[in-house]
Amino acid sequence: MQNYKAPKTDTLFVMNEVFNFEAHYQRLGFTDATPDLVDAIYAEAAKFAEEVLAPINAIGDQEGCQWHDGEVTTPTGFKEAYAKYVEGGWPSMAHPEQYGGQALPYSLASAMAEWFSGANHSWAMYPGLSQGCIDTIKAHGSDVQKEMFLHNLVAGTWTGTMCLTEPHCGSDLGMLKCKAEPNDDGTYKLTGTKIFISAGEHDLSENIVHIVLARLPGAPEGTRGISLFVVPKYHVDAQGNKGERNTVKCGSIEHKMGIKGSATCVINFDEATGVLIGEPNRGLNCMFTFMNIARIGTGLEGLSASEASFQGALAYAKDRLQFRALTGKQNSEGPADPIIVHPDVRRMLLTQKAFAEGNRALAIYCMQLVDETLYGTDAETKQLADNKLSLLTPIVKAFLTETALESTSHGMQVYGGHGYIAEWGMEQLARDTRICTMYEGTTGIQAMDLLARKIMGSKGELLNIVQTEILNYCHRIRDQQQFNAMANAIQSHCDEWQQLTAEIGKSAQQNPNELGAASVDYLMYSGYVLVGYMWLQMAVVAQQKLDAGEGNPAFYQAKLHTAQFYFDRILTRTRAHVSSIRSGADNLMSMPEALFNVS
Amino acid sequence: MQNYKAPKTDTLFVMNEVFNFEAHYQRLGFTDATPDLVDAIYAEAAKFAEEVLAPINAIGDQEGCQWHDGEVTTPTGFKEAYAKYVEGGWPSMAHPEQYGGQALPYSLASAMAEWFSGANHSWAMYPGLSQGCIDTIKAHGSDVQKEMFLHNLVAGTWTGTMCLTEPHCGSDLGMLKCKAEPNDDGTYKLTGTKIFISAGEHDLSENIVHIVLARLPGAPEGTRGISLFVVPKYHVDAQGNKGERNTVKCGSIEHKMGIKGSATCVINFDEATGVLIGEPNRGLNCMFTFMNIARIGTGLEGLSASEASFQGALAYAKDRLQFRALTGKQNSEGPADPIIVHPDVRRMLLTQKAFAEGNRALAIYCMQLVDETLYGTDAETKQLADNKLSLLTPIVKAFLTETALESTSHGMQVYGGHGYIAEWGMEQLARDTRICTMYEGTTGIQAMDLLARKIMGSKGELLNIVQTEILNYCHRIRDQQQFNAMANAIQSHCDEWQQLTAEIGKSAQQNPNELGAASVDYLMYSGYVLVGYMWLQMAVVAQQKLDAGEGNPAFYQAKLHTAQFYFDRILTRTRAHVSSIRSGADNLMSMPEALFNVS
Repeated sequence: MQNYKAPKTDTLFVMNEVFNFEAHYQRLGFTDATPDLVDAIYAEAAKFAEEVLAPINAIGDQEGCQWHDGEVTTPTGFKEAYAKYVEGGWPSMAHPEQYGGQALPYSLASAMAEWFSGANHSWAMYPGLSQGCIDTIKAHGSDVQKEMFLHNLVAGTWTGTMCLTEPHCGSDLGMLKCKAEPNDDGTYKLTGTKIFISAGEHDLSENIVHIVLARLPGAPEGTRGISLFVVPKYHVDAQGNKGERNTVKCGSIEHKMGIKGSATCVINFDEATGVLIGEPNRGLNCMFTFMNIARIGTGLEGLSASEASFQGALAYAKDRLQFRALTGKQNSEGPADPIIVHPDVRRMLLTQKAFAEGNRALAIYCMQLVDETLYGTDAETKQLADNKLSLLTPIVKAFLTETALESTSHGMQVYGGHGYIAEWGMEQLARDTRICTMYEGTTGIQAMDLLARKIMGSKGELLNIVQTEILNYCHRIRDQQQFNAMANAIQSHCDEWQQLTAEIGKSAQQNPNELGAASVDYLMYSGYVLVGYMWLQMAVVAQQKLDAGEGNPAFYQAKLHTAQFYFDRILTRTRAHVSSIRSGADNLMSMPEALFNVS
Repeated sequence: MQNYKAPKTDTLFVMNEVFNFEAHYQRLGFTDATPDLVDAIYAEAAKFAEEVLAPINAIGDQEGCQWHDGEVTTPTGFKEAYAKYVEGGWPSMAHPEQYGGQALPYSLASAMAEWFSGANHSWAMYPGLSQGCIDTIKAHGSDVQKEMFLHNLVAGTWTGTMCLTEPHCGSDLGMLKCKAEPNDDGTYKLTGTKIFISAGEHDLSENIVHIVLARLPGAPEGTRGISLFVVPKYHVDAQGNKGERNTVKCGSIEHKMGIKGSATCVINFDEATGVLIGEPNRGLNCMFTFMNIARIGTGLEGLSASEASFQGALAYAKDRLQFRALTGKQNSEGPADPIIVHPDVRRMLLTQKAFAEGNRALAIYCMQLVDETLYGTDAETKQLADNKLSLLTPIVKAFLTETALESTSHGMQVYGGHGYIAEWGMEQLARDTRICTMYEGTTGIQAMDLLARKIMGSKGELLNIVQTEILNYCHRIRDQQQFNAMANAIQSHCDEWQQLTAEIGKSAQQNPNELGAASVDYLMYSGYVLVGYMWLQMAVVAQQKLDAGEGNPAFYQAKLHTAQFYFDRILTRTRAHVSSIRSGADNLMSMPEALFNVS
């Protein structure tokens, strides 16, 4: 199996050279977060990913988690790796000093999280899940609740979960049934069953803090009657001390296609004691505050798989000898040429590379926007970032994970039959990342969030905001003739994007199904254009560096080649999506349900 | 898990109503193969698939095959199912009476093979592999060799394999090293290691007959020095009696992503005794004779997964309640509407349905051509069929399997997170069918076979032959105004297809890499057009039946709806492929190998 290598150089290229994170961090008051400090932290993070997490990735898949009488044992090495993670202070990086955190920016912790996931998707989910829990308590908990839970969560000695899904309701949370009844002491007793709870039970941490969506007695039906509770595995006193076992128990774990080292739990609440956080019946609003960050995190998981699969495929393509190049022998001493000489193998590799690097740029760009929304002081700049993020989040979630399915499939295909064999690790990447288009809201859900809520909901205003930035950029580089063709492609896509939006808006007034019928194609179209915009920016920076004679020229030349590939062979996929969007809803809706399985 | 249902009605619709197999069988002298007989056989075959094979599909995945000291145990129930298969006379259906066969046409046995694979891909591989072995011995073996091996293979008491791949050579068979040295008695002793040998060792049959590619002493290098041998697990005397154990042993089995019930073996030949079949050094030519049939078989496996995944997704989409329809409540008594009301869920279901049914038509059309090449008596008609088949085979292999990856992924996606859970069966379908684009020649290999060997190798003649049929058909239905738009779409694609071919041919004269760079997009383009041609024919027949008031109108209405969907939303994907083809080879080849992993 190919050893995973954290793509630190590329991450830092995007942060420092494309998006000028140095100035960004200074402006937001993170005066310590200099490029040197970031580099030093990232060197350690890369080592942790490569030397601690990657070596236990295959073991995690083979062993999986084991359930016994409510307890879950994680695979060999997971516990030790988590101990090292806590010891290294990684969990506390982007949290307030008040709770023992290091008060570094979100983006700094988030960009490197890609590597943890790339090295070991399953393992990285355990600390990943704590983030949403911490953020929720931080934003909506009382001071007492923060004192109770945050110190240990920030330290990583406790972990967290988000308990939303129930057997009969996934995306449609309005249907949830879990009940919370008030106790005399101001706490609540929660009763119900949650499913698909990642990290719901395991042996990595001393306590597990569940954020649970449930209904109070007499709460309104639907999404307006949902409240948010914190329910720990072990009771916690006001000083944050761990007490007796609470009546929350893991009923079973799921047998899944992949991420087998991640425990996906059925969690039964049997009059379990919890505390309400935030206002009654406003639980879903509290959740949505952090949905953006969670969804970018899932996009990042997809990206991490694209990168890891590319690394594996590239190593094999340079090593495996099979046939001669169509243009004649390239490796005269060997019995055949390495398969990287074959155009179709290069097509697959470049597709992986273009997605990994282009998607990484889009993700990191979003992290910069998140920083602004979290730490910005200028209200207008903050609102602008929030608006952009609002549009970009469903795209990042869905596009980075959908393209990960393609990338990891190419990775297997480059190996031929060997790609199907477990020992090479390529098929595990494909299986592990397959969940990413489904959890945290399916691609279909993201697409409706984008098109119905964000685009139509803002009457196109959010699209205008994002496009203004893109068109300004294209205008700014208009004198660089070398990039005119790429900039023109982006600009004409922006025009078309507006036009498609108007067309859909108009037809949806007659028939709301037009939104659903266009949604996924519209999202993918948007993703291809945005990643094209990223590639344009990376290419422009690469050329600047080459012209200035700075850095490693090979790195920048590779960027220029890959950008060209993206514009020639990937961006052009929008043609099929446009046709599909314009074909309308009738071809989907006119067939009566009863005709689907006549035979 | 959804119960698999053999799509007998649709198979018979294609055979009887679209391609008039009744006349076809009569013309080829299969006077017994009347629609009534076919229907009776197919009723039994459907029962076998549904009641014997489907129930052990998940067990096969869970248990996998077990290797112990050279012996392989198949999963629970596989042996019993195989015994029933033999008892039912299924293996002998399309083989000559001389060897105990039932002398029915190839297509009759082959069309229903889809169902066996759809019910249980892993299990179906065991009898599937015997076919290539039987066909090879039948065509190239001496009379003595046929007597030795065919009776038991045809009866199914013995099974067969094809041993091609070695650790260092997959597609590039010219590099193979397995040696065959002559013994004094006219037999040979074979030494070497073969890998990825499906059904190479198992407990279903009394003997296993390996067809092995190896080199004679002093044989020319490369593909012109390969000969074909039959090497049985147990020695066989001239009368076909099983004797002592031969020195061929299974060294291990692979741990794979899927088809876990199918034993993928390392087979070690240690001076194992074998007999030469066919002429020395002509082994590869003998193999290629049957490659067409094997590749159609693999396409059929892909198709079978598309169908099974569609069935599963449809059942769930009608059952799972989540959200209300965009146009308002459809299921007022329930807490939410079934998800089939949502346009994007329908998009996925219709994509699956369009691929399953359209691909089935293309596969069965190819089977009709195979019949003609096998049993035809008119030399010209036979040659015409052979020419068409030569072009269509790589397309059927690659297109039906690539679209199966997409279909089975949609199948999971319709289930949301539940699609990732083993118990629903959807993820097994995706894992099992993932092998199909890799074995029997990867998609890249098929694409070069199509574009370099078939298209360019015939100077476009094979394409003309296929297009003549398509254009004649479009001309024949020109008065049916209802179908003018579809026929025009096919015709303009035919024009474009010719033009693309000419463009690639021209640029490839300057740079042979242009072939490789265009190949997979060209193959997919061809597949979309051909399946479009199938949908047009099915739609025309459906309308005829509706007009005539024959049959089940719902079945024919569904065909018309699905055809429209295909033309609106699937055929239009050719736009992206055209862009990619026309972008040329430079964007793939200009980046030096060393730049791929600069970091």
